[in-house]
Amino acid sequence: MNILVAGLGLIGASVAKALKKYTSHHVMGWNRTESVCIKALQDGAVDEIGTLDELIPKADITIINFYPDAIIPFIMDNKDKFKVDSIVTDSCGIKTKICRLLEKEKFNFTYIGAHPMAGREVSGYDNSLADLFSNASFICTPTNAPKAKIDTLVEVAKEMGFARTVVTTPEHHDEMIAFTSQIAHVLACSYVLSPLAPQHTGFSAGSYRDVSRVARINGEMWSKLFIDNKEPLINEIDDLVNNLLKFRTAIKEEDRAELESLMAQANKIKEEIG
Amino acid sequence: MNILVAGLGLIGASVAKALKKYTSHHVMGWNRTESVCIKALQDGAVDEIGTLDELIPKADITIINFYPDAIIPFIMDNKDKFKVDSIVTDSCGIKTKICRLLEKEKFNFTYIGAHPMAGREVSGYDNSLADLFSNASFICTPTNAPKAKIDTLVEVAKEMGFARTVVTTPEHHDEMIAFTSQIAHVLACSYVLSPLAPQHTGFSAGSYRDVSRVARINGEMWSKLFIDNKEPLINEIDDLVNNLLKFRTAIKEEDRAELESLMAQANKIKEEIG
Repeated sequence: MNILVAGLGLIGASVAKALKKYTSHHVMGWNRTESVCIKALQDGAVDEIGTLDELIPKADITIINFYPDAIIPFIMDNKDKFKVDSIVTDSCGIKTKICRLLEKEKFNFTYIGAHPMAGREVSGYDNSLADLFSNASFICTPTNAPKAKIDTLVEVAKEMGFARTVVTTPEHHDEMIAFTSQIAHVLACSYVLSPLAPQHTGFSAGSYRDVSRVARINGEMWSKLFIDNKEPLINEIDDLVNNLLKFRTAIKEEDRAELESLMAQANKIKEEIG
Repeated sequence: MNILVAGLGLIGASVAKALKKYTSHHVMGWNRTESVCIKALQDGAVDEIGTLDELIPKADITIINFYPDAIIPFIMDNKDKFKVDSIVTDSCGIKTKICRLLEKEKFNFTYIGAHPMAGREVSGYDNSLADLFSNASFICTPTNAPKAKIDTLVEVAKEMGFARTVVTTPEHHDEMIAFTSQIAHVLACSYVLSPLAPQHTGFSAGSYRDVSRVARINGEMWSKLFIDNKEPLINEIDDLVNNLLKFRTAIKEEDRAELESLMAQANKIKEEIG
């Protein structure tokens, strides 16, 4: 198949490199900044570059890797150029808002929302990796797509080396991502905003390092993702704050049994589920 | 020197193994459960085992590795047995309560509180490692100890392979540990207590893994540590909750500028300090 990777930042360029490394598909690349396209071609991360007008009509699958705001405009602007019966997908970290809006449109291609669940604390083409997805889940959230198209997309994800593929609803995706990813970033940031953080050197070990890692964050992108997933994320913040306040009360009242019970529950989840 | 390691759980046995691997001191081991002592001797983790009455009077340094509650009773019960002019230290994760109480006593040995800042999600002798401290800080919190004794203890820590040694007050230690370690454990537990945690498989990546890691916790020990460090830890919980609520408000009001500002501050701390 001809696969167009639009947007060659961290995720897009990693998608292109994974396709090149692990599949025999013809990989076309496009990026707003042309110098990145030229670099990707020189690196062998893509087989072909060109204008959108040249590349879009040839693509059996178009994978859009932009900031959340730019995905719907890109699809609507190019809706008459996509190849008939082709698949158009994206890698944006929230799905309900995008998928539920696009399912109302009549296209002669199939849109399937997706989320390759991987990232790094650094961004941009230069940090992309062919193996970024080797331990990651590929989640797709089709709404009105034919089964054959879903199967094709999932098959490509498997070829690319994703460890797991999950097909679910946009709403379930967003609720789970609020928990597994968004709140983890919110709490890592909230943690390092303590007035004591700047003095931590010499007093920190693995727990500080791990809990704070994802506070290295691209605020421009994540602020939009947080707002686009407002309700599920606020639910998670409320759950987290309530649990923190349970610890606070138990510590204040020196209620060792309650503290042990809270930690036993947490430990059980980590032991049983990981 | 003759060094007695009392308590051969995860930390104590790792101390013994590090002393054996990296120093030429004579290492004596004692543990309440005798089978552990025999195993340690067989493994070469210690050079000598015996009763407390046999070992304590010979020790130039005694390192106590018990649960927080058991440290002061152990020192008081044995106060007339410790060698004159010897050093007695412990590895407990909170220091103010223990050090400020012991400094009131008149001993013919020198007590210096210490905290070898390392741990694992697993506990017990069988999980101990000679290299547990190779990236760790050794923090000691002397109150009325002579400089020569502090220097001796710090020198042994350096020989054992600690990456850093820090000498500070018990109060500063406890405040910093509330931030770098205790609150990290509280928030990891609070995080996995979300009702969505049991469903996370397939939807989680590195951020879930890292933020939740230290929710594998020994609640029996940590509940005591939390209560013994009540005020600093409650301050940290309050700071964390306030920061989470700043995110909540900004998300609710769709205040992207505020979200970007919060994340830019967090990102700056991680970039500049780590």
